[in-house]
Amino acid sequence: MLGTGLIGLFYTRTLHGQRNRDRVHVVYSRSEERARAFAQEEGVPEWSTDFEQAIAHPETDTVIVGLPNPLHEEAIELCARHGKAVLCTKPLARTADEARRILDTVESAGIFAGYLEDLAYTPKTLKALSMVRAGSIGDVTWARSRETHPGPHSAWFWDAKQAGGGPIVDLGCHCIEIVRNFIGKENRPLDVMCWADTLVHPIEAEDNAIALIRFESGAIGQFEVSWTFRGGMDLRDEVAGTEGTIWLNHFLRTGFDAFSSGAGGYVAEKAESASGWVFPVGDEIAELGYVDMFTDMFDAMDEGRAPMETFYDGYVVNAIIDACYRSAASRQWEPVELADWRGGGVARIERPRRERDGKTVIKEEQMPDGRIKLILKDESTGEFVDVVADGAPVA
Amino acid sequence: MLGTGLIGLFYTRTLHGQRNRDRVHVVYSRSEERARAFAQEEGVPEWSTDFEQAIAHPETDTVIVGLPNPLHEEAIELCARHGKAVLCTKPLARTADEARRILDTVESAGIFAGYLEDLAYTPKTLKALSMVRAGSIGDVTWARSRETHPGPHSAWFWDAKQAGGGPIVDLGCHCIEIVRNFIGKENRPLDVMCWADTLVHPIEAEDNAIALIRFESGAIGQFEVSWTFRGGMDLRDEVAGTEGTIWLNHFLRTGFDAFSSGAGGYVAEKAESASGWVFPVGDEIAELGYVDMFTDMFDAMDEGRAPMETFYDGYVVNAIIDACYRSAASRQWEPVELADWRGGGVARIERPRRERDGKTVIKEEQMPDGRIKLILKDESTGEFVDVVADGAPVA
Amino acid sequence: MLGTGLIGLFYTRTLHGQRNRDRVHVVYSRSEERARAFAQEEGVPEWSTDFEQAIAHPETDTVIVGLPNPLHEEAIELCARHGKAVLCTKPLARTADEARRILDTVESAGIFAGYLEDLAYTPKTLKALSMVRAGSIGDVTWARSRETHPGPHSAWFWDAKQAGGGPIVDLGCHCIEIVRNFIGKENRPLDVMCWADTLVHPIEAEDNAIALIRFESGAIGQFEVSWTFRGGMDLRDEVAGTEGTIWLNHFLRTGFDAFSSGAGGYVAEKAESASGWVFPVGDEIAELGYVDMFTDMFDAMDEGRAPMETFYDGYVVNAIIDACYRSAASRQWEPVELADWRGGGVARIERPRRERDGKTVIKEEQMPDGRIKLILKDESTGEFVDVVADGAPVA
Amino acid sequence: MLGTGLIGLFYTRTLHGQRNRDRVHVVYSRSEERARAFAQEEGVPEWSTDFEQAIAHPETDTVIVGLPNPLHEEAIELCARHGKAVLCTKPLARTADEARRILDTVESAGIFAGYLEDLAYTPKTLKALSMVRAGSIGDVTWARSRETHPGPHSAWFWDAKQAGGGPIVDLGCHCIEIVRNFIGKENRPLDVMCWADTLVHPIEAEDNAIALIRFESGAIGQFEVSWTFRGGMDLRDEVAGTEGTIWLNHFLRTGFDAFSSGAGGYVAEKAESASGWVFPVGDEIAELGYVDMFTDMFDAMDEGRAPMETFYDGYVVNAIIDACYRSAASRQWEPVELADWRGGGVARIERPRRERDGKTVIKEEQMPDGRIKLILKDESTGEFVDVVADGAPVA
Repeated sequence: MLGTGLIGLFYTRTLHGQRNRDRVHVVYSRSEERARAFAQEEGVPEWSTDFEQAIAHPETDTVIVGLPNPLHEEAIELCARHGKAVLCTKPLARTADEARRILDTVESAGIFAGYLEDLAYTPKTLKALSMVRAGSIGDVTWARSRETHPGPHSAWFWDAKQAGGGPIVDLGCHCIEIVRNFIGKENRPLDVMCWADTLVHPIEAEDNAIALIRFESGAIGQFEVSWTFRGGMDLRDEVAGTEGTIWLNHFLRTGFDAFSSGAGGYVAEKAESASGWVFPVGDEIAELGYVDMFTDMFDAMDEGRAPMETFYDGYVVNAIIDACYRSAASRQWEPVELADWRGGGVARIERPRRERDGKTVIKEEQMPDGRIKLILKDESTGEFVDVVADGAPVA
Repeated sequence: MLGTGLIGLFYTRTLHGQRNRDRVHVVYSRSEERARAFAQEEGVPEWSTDFEQAIAHPETDTVIVGLPNPLHEEAIELCARHGKAVLCTKPLARTADEARRILDTVESAGIFAGYLEDLAYTPKTLKALSMVRAGSIGDVTWARSRETHPGPHSAWFWDAKQAGGGPIVDLGCHCIEIVRNFIGKENRPLDVMCWADTLVHPIEAEDNAIALIRFESGAIGQFEVSWTFRGGMDLRDEVAGTEGTIWLNHFLRTGFDAFSSGAGGYVAEKAESASGWVFPVGDEIAELGYVDMFTDMFDAMDEGRAPMETFYDGYVVNAIIDACYRSAASRQWEPVELADWRGGGVARIERPRRERDGKTVIKEEQMPDGRIKLILKDESTGEFVDVVADGAPVA
Repeated sequence: MLGTGLIGLFYTRTLHGQRNRDRVHVVYSRSEERARAFAQEEGVPEWSTDFEQAIAHPETDTVIVGLPNPLHEEAIELCARHGKAVLCTKPLARTADEARRILDTVESAGIFAGYLEDLAYTPKTLKALSMVRAGSIGDVTWARSRETHPGPHSAWFWDAKQAGGGPIVDLGCHCIEIVRNFIGKENRPLDVMCWADTLVHPIEAEDNAIALIRFESGAIGQFEVSWTFRGGMDLRDEVAGTEGTIWLNHFLRTGFDAFSSGAGGYVAEKAESASGWVFPVGDEIAELGYVDMFTDMFDAMDEGRAPMETFYDGYVVNAIIDACYRSAASRQWEPVELADWRGGGVARIERPRRERDGKTVIKEEQMPDGRIKLILKDESTGEFVDVVADGAPVA
Repeated sequence: MLGTGLIGLFYTRTLHGQRNRDRVHVVYSRSEERARAFAQEEGVPEWSTDFEQAIAHPETDTVIVGLPNPLHEEAIELCARHGKAVLCTKPLARTADEARRILDTVESAGIFAGYLEDLAYTPKTLKALSMVRAGSIGDVTWARSRETHPGPHSAWFWDAKQAGGGPIVDLGCHCIEIVRNFIGKENRPLDVMCWADTLVHPIEAEDNAIALIRFESGAIGQFEVSWTFRGGMDLRDEVAGTEGTIWLNHFLRTGFDAFSSGAGGYVAEKAESASGWVFPVGDEIAELGYVDMFTDMFDAMDEGRAPMETFYDGYVVNAIIDACYRSAASRQWEPVELADWRGGGVARIERPRRERDGKTVIKEEQMPDGRIKLILKDESTGEFVDVVADGAPVA
């Protein structure tokens, strides 16, 4: 386990949680004090302040990279050199170029590599994806992913030079991958339109951004990210399809409402206050996808298959983020530059044309009296008419 | 009352509803059969198939235009000629040019003119606007308005030539005015970025669109409209500010949930089925803003003041819609062309810089142990650091 | 308008709200200062500190009794004497005996009398009742009505001697009438089981109570009332039927969520704080039923019919409240004593027995593989068996 | 694993789920066909149709009893005889007498025994319990637990002779233990008031029941169970305290809403239809508490401590169920007969009396103008008065 920050803690607690059979053997931090404390509190047998030593350690068969963005490439190179499987936190890199070098490194070395995109693995997302794949909502036309909160917990996130950007990098990487999963990973992201601005915080990076991603099928992805949201962490996805709709709320409205006068102190993580209505999450580690993510990663290693989220996915995400920043600057749609596209060709969203009396059926609805009303288009004249059918559905 | 379609019916039922003191005296439809039937069913004393006759009728002191978009201009010209007050349904026109001619007509004639934008008047919106004006959420940074359903009920809406477009015109006009109310009508809409596509229906007009509107203060408006949504009518607004958040749901989740096995038939308007879970609205006329809208209109006339929603607002809405279509074609941000801007200058959103130990305070949060953690930026070096304060709030 | 407390204010604002055509002409308060201030602020032409004078006033055609419980009987007697229509706030009386005397008084005098039970008239309740009557949820088996908040606003409510009890009288009267409407007013309330206790406040009256009401059809009513609830006003109804379910939330979750850091001060009525998440209601007067209630009352007078809620209903409510207090003391079910029962006989809830292969069908459900699983009972042996049918539904 | 029904399947999938280190070694079913099929599908190495053989098997160190209620006692006796740890599904027994014999058996044998009450272990419940214990909602005054659905999946549940009753036994056992956890296991359940009726299904057992449980502190527990609910599985808990409120929704409104036209077939378990709005649960096994339950059980064994839910708890639950049936018959409160009470004495719920100017403070609230309004009681005269303070909070 490289890193003792919030993400290293979440990862370790996931691995050491419930009756899980995987364990952290060595933890690395550049600070001896934190490495030692972390090892002791979390029950990790060994600690190190030497990067390579922790990676090369004989008890280490898998390295988990939970370090700040600028350190990913170096850590992964060392994993490749020592032939260790590597799991890297999101985003994979700060740019698509860096991501592609990382991808080349692990593919050349032939090591197992998993991209730790936890929000693609939340239990709700997995169930929703299975519904989408079963055809419950037809062809996906639109997927919106939103992640907003009042801002990250550690200083380096706020420094655009270190992080590679603001919430587009920090939160947008989650949203993009959620959108890709719903719209289909085979579906090529063509171009991106992005607005970004620094509205509230005294920083160089953007603190708010909205982007649209156009896919080959015609489907549109949409993400909204912010470090200035008030009221907790707003983590929601919405998916529309030709046959249905899915709405997911991961954090603020999950069937757990609590009001407190303030007695008893601290009531819920990320809530902005200890009194009033708060909306806790039952088991944050499970709800945020960490449990299912590590299960997929270690099962994939055991079974010799690729995990659901790979370094190639991380590379695509970075390519989309790059296009976002270009679009925010150019104020126009910018192509997603993917020198290495591994998806297939995807057909345009389509609903078969239905016909009645030689006219195209535009809409069919039941009226309160039970009769069926049709809106028809005469393709020869271009005219639209309302017709009431006698209850018989259109063939 | 000009028009006997769904909107004419809603308007008439609002005026004749509860213990209201305003009445419809004459109803016009081009079809004698519908005019007669409407008059009889809704208790309207007289009907006419002659446009001008209905407007000029001595019992008519106010004309309500509930006609398809292409007929607005002619109807309003006749109102001006006969010196009658006029209330016109949304959108005011099909283009900003047409809207401006209409605006000139009523202003030259000196008649009272009200823009029937009902969704700006829903009880929830009015209460939310009063909260925003009282400062409860600070400066507004983002307002999203979403209106999506499976498509309109009458044939002419689907014909881009008659309607002036698809859901951008039909639904976007609502969203734009909701956004303008939350962000502030003094706040000039600068430019627009819009995506539109025809994904599902076999029509010329778009059936899905998303747009961003950038305002002078830096605030961003966002609307999502669709004629392909499944599951009823999704009518939601979300507003983020520097000090708070507001979420409004007008239709599908309003504290009224019902499940039916299908016994008893028809259960709720706009629901896609008569069985399963449905989400009815208590009093649709009141919840959609019709009651408060007509109260404002007639009170404004009685009090000799302008209503909350004027023809000028309708003109601004059309100018934004025009920019949306230009942007959808050009694939870049397009300016909102407002030859006649009546708002003021609005300052940039700003939160006063706070300082501690000579550094800029980026973030302050309480940790579970009660201590305060600060993220500070050293403006001279550009470096960011985490600091734990001793519980004392930052001055 | 008799009374200038919170309820008198709500009633007056309802009558003077929107474009309503009914007006308050005289307001009475025992305090000259309050009568004068109320008249001025609410636009009432005349005020009085003399009970009878206000009732007998020539401009008064309808008297609205918005006084504390102990004054209802006297006020209504004066209305009868002066031949004025009377509308009385809830509860009608403090006991069934008092209610019955009041009922006799108005029936002997032949005056119009309406029971101002606003919560039976909320738009959601009216729509839900229309669904129930249309058969959408089949036979009603259970209706729960819950009203809880941190306690009333005026001192006299807290004094059991004046009020006739605690929240059973104050809030239970609402719940009972909501339950009666859903279960059917023809359906005789047979007996009552009630728990009541004083858990938190230093008062003689109960501050929490729960009751079950058994009706002739077998349906069960349930109410929960409390003056110790934390988090605002919890006002919910749930109805279960043989074919469906209805859930209503009137106050805390109505599709209006707001978070505020506390900037701007006061954000919502009855919220316990000005910061954090609050759940305002759009138009409280409309949502709480006042608008539809007065429409029904005045329309009923105009049309010479009884209103939906009559003094007889008020009497039944008091009889059920009496049984609640007897049951809370005796710790057993107590009969509802109704010397004057005007409802009909109602049959037992029943679902027709279905049969398959000579056995009674207990349950039928679709399995994930699409086949139908049946649970059957052999009436001759009393044995239950699982059977999988071949997809054919049971006739 | 004894039993291959739905519960045996859930248990096995929990143990074999994620990266769990515990495994099922032998599965028992009285039907060879089912035993063999279950073993193959779930990856269990061995199967048996011989009860004792499976228990005595050398690979078996813990026996999980997932059998119908009438077989629990015999199975547990065999565990005691063979000295195997035993985990038994809910309810422990059909009566308190039977439960007590079972309790004696395992305590005499000195074997580890855990009560598999999964709903006390849902992630939401565990988090909510930690909040209650931290004092966030003060003293608990009321806990409501509701479990209702359209009826169980296997024939034996419907047979009162085998099951020991209807939904009071099947579902009430869950509710009672949830209530006990929130109100406190030290808090003695004194007596019970229960209504039960058979409203819809053609069975001997009740199909609907509601009960109140009075605890030593004055707190009241409430459960509602039904086999006739329409719309899925309604699984909710509500807890009120002197300082706060908690609402949990485990199934139908958990932030996962989906609408489907019916394309794609089966969409969610326990939903009553494959089209319309459905409300799936992300990871049902985790959300229903199975994961945390087995973690506690096996950790408890490893650590030599008692689990959170013991056979003693199962005995108390059965004693409360017995009192429910007695009360439903006698139509009065019935004592909970606990020959063996292991809890302590618990004090009455109390809020310290506050005083101002020699009077008792009944209520204190902030008015919109910011001033504080007090309701005071003069204990000497018994009179209540309203007082407006000058903004200073009452000491």
